[in-house]
Order: sequence, then C-alpha cells, then structure tokens
Amino acid sequence: MIELSLIGIGTGNPDQVTLAAVRALNEADLILLPRKGEAKADLVDLRRMLCQSLLEPEAPVNVVEFDLPVRDRRDDYLATVDDWHDAISAVWGELIDRHLSGSGRVALMIWGDPSLYDSSLRIAGRLQSSGRSINLTVVPGITSLQVLTAEHRIPLNSLAEPVQITTGRRLREDGWPGGVNAVAVMLDGGGAFTVISSEDVYIWWGAYLGMDKQCLIEGRLADVADRILERRAELRRQHGWIMDIYLLKRDNALVSVQSVRSGDVPDKGE
Amino acid sequence: MIELSLIGIGTGNPDQVTLAAVRALNEADLILLPRKGEAKADLVDLRRMLCQSLLEPEAPVNVVEFDLPVRDRRDDYLATVDDWHDAISAVWGELIDRHLSGSGRVALMIWGDPSLYDSSLRIAGRLQSSGRSINLTVVPGITSLQVLTAEHRIPLNSLAEPVQITTGRRLREDGWPGGVNAVAVMLDGGGAFTVISSEDVYIWWGAYLGMDKQCLIEGRLADVADRILERRAELRRQHGWIMDIYLLKRDNALVSVQSVRSGDVPDKGE
Repeated sequence: MIELSLIGIGTGNPDQVTLAAVRALNEADLILLPRKGEAKADLVDLRRMLCQSLLEPEAPVNVVEFDLPVRDRRDDYLATVDDWHDAISAVWGELIDRHLSGSGRVALMIWGDPSLYDSSLRIAGRLQSSGRSINLTVVPGITSLQVLTAEHRIPLNSLAEPVQITTGRRLREDGWPGGVNAVAVMLDGGGAFTVISSEDVYIWWGAYLGMDKQCLIEGRLADVADRILERRAELRRQHGWIMDIYLLKRDNALVSVQSVRSGDVPDKGE
Repeated sequence: MIELSLIGIGTGNPDQVTLAAVRALNEADLILLPRKGEAKADLVDLRRMLCQSLLEPEAPVNVVEFDLPVRDRRDDYLATVDDWHDAISAVWGELIDRHLSGSGRVALMIWGDPSLYDSSLRIAGRLQSSGRSINLTVVPGITSLQVLTAEHRIPLNSLAEPVQITTGRRLREDGWPGGVNAVAVMLDGGGAFTVISSEDVYIWWGAYLGMDKQCLIEGRLADVADRILERRAELRRQHGWIMDIYLLKRDNALVSVQSVRSGDVPDKGE
C-alpha cells in the first residue's frame, strides 16, 4: 500500500506551515519535488528551502526532484489539460514505483491548499485509477486568499453575507456575479477588474503574498486600478513571474443591513 | 502601543496550528480566553488545551479568562449584534488596560481563520476607535471549509470554476445561487439544503471537523439528506452543541466542459 499525502504548504513563508504538515513531511519516505522551468525557479527554491528548514536531520526522507511535464498549448484546452494531468500522474507513478517498490509514504508539497484552484487531487485520482493501491491523505494549508485578508486585516465576507471565489476569466466574461457584494478573484492573467464598473467598488490587491517581495495595494477601484496594473507589469518584468489575487467589495451597506433579519447567526456561532 | 494579534487556530486539532501561530502565542504578554457558557464549554477547553500544548514552559504569557458578554436576543438583529460587539470590545479594552497598562502584546485565539464568518476583526476595529493606540496583526488559520475538503479529499472548486461561500439562511431564502455549480454553506442552523431541488446535487457534509468527534457524510443529496438531518440532531443532543458545514455541487460536467475555453489557466498556475 502506498500512502500518498498532498500537503498544503501555504504561500512560501515557512511560518505558514502547520504542525500537521511538518509532521507529515518528516514521516514521508519520499518527497516528490517538481521542477517547473527557469521562469518558476523561485517556486522550486521555496520548496527546497521548506525541506531544508522543516525536515529533521535524522528524518530518512528521500527528496526526489523531477521535471514537471509541460502543458501543450494547443487549441483544445480541455484535451490538453486532460493529457497534461495524465502525463503528470504517469510521472508520479513511475517515481513512486522506482523509489518505493509498492509500499511506503510519498508526499507532495502543494502551494496554498490542495482544495483551491489546484489539480493535484485530480492527478492523484488518476493515479488511484492506475491499478496501484493508493491511500490518499490531504493536509490543509493556508491559502493566498487567507494571507490576502490577513495582511490587509479585513474579513472575506461582510456580516452574514455570501462571498464568491472566482477566476479572472469569469469576471472578464460574465461581469460582477449576481447575488453577492464580495468577490475574490484568483487566476487573473491581469486586470480583469477593468471590465466592471468601478463605481462604489473597493479593491484589496496582493502579489507574492507571504513572500519577502509581497506587495499590497488597496483603495477605491476607480482610484487605484491603474496603479495596480502598472505595479503588476513592473513586478512581473522584475521577477519573471507573478501570482496575485484580489478581493472586491461593493459599497452597499444599506442593502446588507436590510437583508439581515432577526434570529440570524452573526458569525461562526461559537 | 498595544500590539493586538488575532490568531487563527484551526478547528480544534492542535496539529492544524501554523508555526506562525505558535510563535505569536509564545510571544504574547497576554492571551485573552473567552468563556462562553456551559453549552460551549468544549470550545473553552480546546483553547485551554492549545495553551497547554503550545506555550513553552518559560513563556511569560499571562492567560486571562473572561466571560464573553451574552448577545441580547431582541427582535432588531442588527442593533443587538452592534451592541454585542460594543460590549465585547469594551471587555477586551478593560482587560488590556488592567493587564498591560498601555503597552505590550495581547493575543486572541480565533476559531478557524479570522477572515471567514468571524467578528473579531470588527470588534478589534471598535477597540482601535476607542482612543487606545493599537497595532493589529492577523495570523491566518485553517478554516473548517479546508478541513471539510481535506477530510473528504475533494477540491472546493471544479476545474477553473467559481464557488460561492454562503450561509444557511441565504440558501434557505434565496435557493441555489445563480452562476455557480458549487456552494459551500456555513452557519446553517440545520437543514437549509432541504429547500433546494436535490436532483443531481451531491453533498459533502461534516460536523466537529478536525476534532475527535468529527463526523462525515457524503452522497447524492436525495439519498443522504434525511440521514444527515437525523445524525445532526442526534449529535447535537449528545454533545450539547454542534458546528457543521457542507459543500454542494451540481452534476453538470457537460456545462462546465463547454464553458471552459482555450487559453484558460487550469489551476493556480504555478
């Protein structure tokens, strides 16, 4: 039996790692560490650094680096993602076969949390369908969304209100989602917020959250949109890559007030 | 200057705490630990247990318990929440004044993460408006939503799709939110999912997530709705309180496939 752990590692600051993640890394026989090409070398370095700082000297962990298969950029997007996930699960499988010979604990360090805009659970599912006997465990990690709200010192949702987590593409194509006054946007190739009416919208933006080069901007969207776009382009040039997300809220406190009724639960209700 | 830290502690399993949270707790001069009445004694015990297991013996931290003001259950919900937050911030302020005399580090352990359906940031905001000089820090913690998806080993969102986080009340009053096929529901007093058409809906439910008494149920909503309601009532009787959440997904893979276009980013895009 292979024990496969997908371990959320937060966003690059080793302090964001949980005690459960530290334990799971140290209990692994094998850690698979993907290399993702020159432009993303920072992210490989971060995982190496986490191994160095979190693994006990006596931990008998074999850290094996591998080249992540490159996604084909053909037209049929879903087919290419499908092929890509197949290729990654094949590489995981080969490495597990080679280094564990049928039994042992293998761990993968997953940026943020494995549940949010991440494909490792889908890839692990393919591996489970491959005929190998695999027991899957997920160790939650801090997401960039939590670091964004922590660094800006804001709640994600307004009192008893919903929040939508969506992608830059969705915002760009569909505009502001119906039924919510708070929208968190991830996977934005840049500036999807320019398509929405900025009137009465506030934005909290962050790039490289949790890292030394973290950058935060907040303000009325109408006032700061251009500044964010310029800063984003500049940072991307400077570092060769960028990961950024943002939270948008509409200023409609009055609407919120009216929609809250007697007997509601105000917060997580402890 | 008072340094106030709101520290996310996850959902009751000390292993979910991050290294940053452990450090912040140990660096505090004062930890305020709210008591919430008999029915919620478990939650106070959990915080006491976290202090015992996470604080270094030599850490000079003063752990002070206090009775959390009780929320008035009058009709005007928003006014009572407003009064309640005022009362809590007044108690925080008094305790800080008494134990720190104007300078030092005070920490509060926040269930889950301070950003999600939690009022501590709003209460801290009031304290900042009270004339005291307060510097606020937020340490992110693992949310129950992340534990739910980790324990069920599922992603929150489908590939490149949005997800809405909402409340039981909202689901009950407004039905399935527009524009999303995945809905995470928190703060449900019980069974809000019974109002939606259960056809083609799948549910992943969890109670007491991360604790020893954790309970998970998943399945087609039509098949498991009654079982969840019965189990929930039973657990609530047994333990005197319950915290549960769930993720709902509509089975519309075909729609999702069609909505994903060429050039999209499939995941967090590392």
